Amino acid sequence: MTQADAMQLEEGSELLLDFHKLEKVAATREAVLPVAVQDAESGQVIMIAYANRQALDYTLEHGIAAFWSTSRDELWVKGATSGDTLQIVEVRVNCEQNSLLYHVKVLGHGACHTRGPDGDTRRTCFYRRIEDGQLVHITREVEGTGT
Amino acid sequence: MTQADAMQLEEGSELLLDFHKLEKVAATREAVLPVAVQDAESGQVIMIAYANRQALDYTLEHGIAAFWSTSRDELWVKGATSGDTLQIVEVRVNCEQNSLLYHVKVLGHGACHTRGPDGDTRRTCFYRRIEDGQLVHITREVEGTGT
Repeated sequence: MTQADAMQLEEGSELLLDFHKLEKVAATREAVLPVAVQDAESGQVIMIAYANRQALDYTLEHGIAAFWSTSRDELWVKGATSGDTLQIVEVRVNCEQNSLLYHVKVLGHGACHTRGPDGDTRRTCFYRRIEDGQLVHITREVEGTGT
Repeated sequence: MTQADAMQLEEGSELLLDFHKLEKVAATREAVLPVAVQDAESGQVIMIAYANRQALDYTLEHGIAAFWSTSRDELWVKGATSGDTLQIVEVRVNCEQNSLLYHVKVLGHGACHTRGPDGDTRRTCFYRRIEDGQLVHITREVEGTGT
């Protein structure tokens, strides 16, 4: 992806949803589950990622959120390079045992790999909402649980 | 799945994570994205489900949470049979436009298809946490955002 494509995808108002994400994830042949990651302090859902057995084991053993990178096909210990580590408060499992919820404490500046207009790492990857078929940036004031 | 298997999976303390969930989802050949669903009032993450284009369009048009049922391979308007409808407050999109976050108002009794010891529909599907390799039920008092 070019820089311009990434900019359009990440900062633009055009809805360009990649509905084929899970097909690509499955194509890696790595057995993973989706993980919702929630900031235990603010209540914000900050990202959705994927974990295989290895990532979950790492997470539980070290108390640090780890995932399986479905783009790099490797263990992804969040913050290992960026410093934006997520400390585990609790790992929850759903009724059917096919998804996970990490409650975390944000130790670095945020969770997202993008930066807001102020140049700071965004706290959450969910900084846009759909409105009339377009994406609208959410201002910091209402970034909470969404009402 | 037998009733006993479902009971063990849904109420038991044994960790029986189905890491092959996403492979099965991909095998349906339906292009879907993961959706985290958050109760906008309590801040609880109540479920993770999947949406295809049709489900997202339905959700945005009707203001009611709809998903793609990956087990029944059909549009799943949550609450259509159970009455546990989720009213949409906001639909958010992540940085890379490959996952969704529905902020909802719970109109029925809850979100989960299981019932707690009191016989009531559980508010959230994430009613157990992992502790020392086992699943531990979370009591109502601390079911919030998890600290």
